[in-house]
Amino acid sequence: MNGVSRVKIRPARSDDVAVIVAMLADDALGRARERLEVPLPESYFEAFAKVDRDPNIQLVVAEDGEGAVVGCLQLCILPGLSSQGASRGLIEDVRVASHCRSRGIGEQMVQWAVAEARAKGCKLVELLTHNTRVDAQRFYVRLGFAPSHVGMTLRF
Amino acid sequence: MNGVSRVKIRPARSDDVAVIVAMLADDALGRARERLEVPLPESYFEAFAKVDRDPNIQLVVAEDGEGAVVGCLQLCILPGLSSQGASRGLIEDVRVASHCRSRGIGEQMVQWAVAEARAKGCKLVELLTHNTRVDAQRFYVRLGFAPSHVGMTLRF
Repeated sequence: MNGVSRVKIRPARSDDVAVIVAMLADDALGRARERLEVPLPESYFEAFAKVDRDPNIQLVVAEDGEGAVVGCLQLCILPGLSSQGASRGLIEDVRVASHCRSRGIGEQMVQWAVAEARAKGCKLVELLTHNTRVDAQRFYVRLGFAPSHVGMTLRF
Repeated sequence: MNGVSRVKIRPARSDDVAVIVAMLADDALGRARERLEVPLPESYFEAFAKVDRDPNIQLVVAEDGEGAVVGCLQLCILPGLSSQGASRGLIEDVRVASHCRSRGIGEQMVQWAVAEARAKGCKLVELLTHNTRVDAQRFYVRLGFAPSHVGMTLRF
């Protein structure tokens, strides 16, 4: 790690959508799935509006000392009956800007999400990471996660 | 498969909570996590109330021809920015009563969830299944799912 950059974790705003999409697209898997165009397809803003009004979902960004957005993460708090009715936290869409990696930014975001899920009464935090993302898997194990499950997906 | 039992998939009601918890507990992993007591701990009913008022979550049960509840499944529709702002479907807590397995009940529930997720605009349905649940993994592959991800969990 090239030293740690302290970041501020804050809720994403609609004017962060373009930089978030740029991070989602700057990735071997994301490149094929996103449409990083100017103007950005309206579907991204519609999705942001849905996320923004859902009280169980928090889309956050990491802001560096200059106020630049250098990371993003989405946390869903999901109620359910299992584990004696404890909610679960689901972490999705974790990205760090490519020029800011290996500075502990992903770790600060994930630790924020874990603390937030605990504070909301979750007994479990879960996430899916693609089989090919071996570095990500190591990262999560370092933060205390176990590779206990198979993540199954069906894409239409 | 010992022939297919057609089931009716319907939203769970609060008077289904005990039978759902019994199914969650009737399982090597669930046994240690649940408290199948009479009366049932209030936390289960509190969780049911949260699920019931969340418009993005559907907890459903499978009812056999006699009106008995023989399966359950929870589907969450999760908005998010990735994949051009498409929502994702997350399937959780899939269970079939032990005396009713191998009759296509799980398949009918999962197919219902996949159709529902598509109808709600999802481009992806995902789920985590424990590494030890090899039969479940085979079942999901048969239904078109790919074991594409590692499911990472952190339990408090």
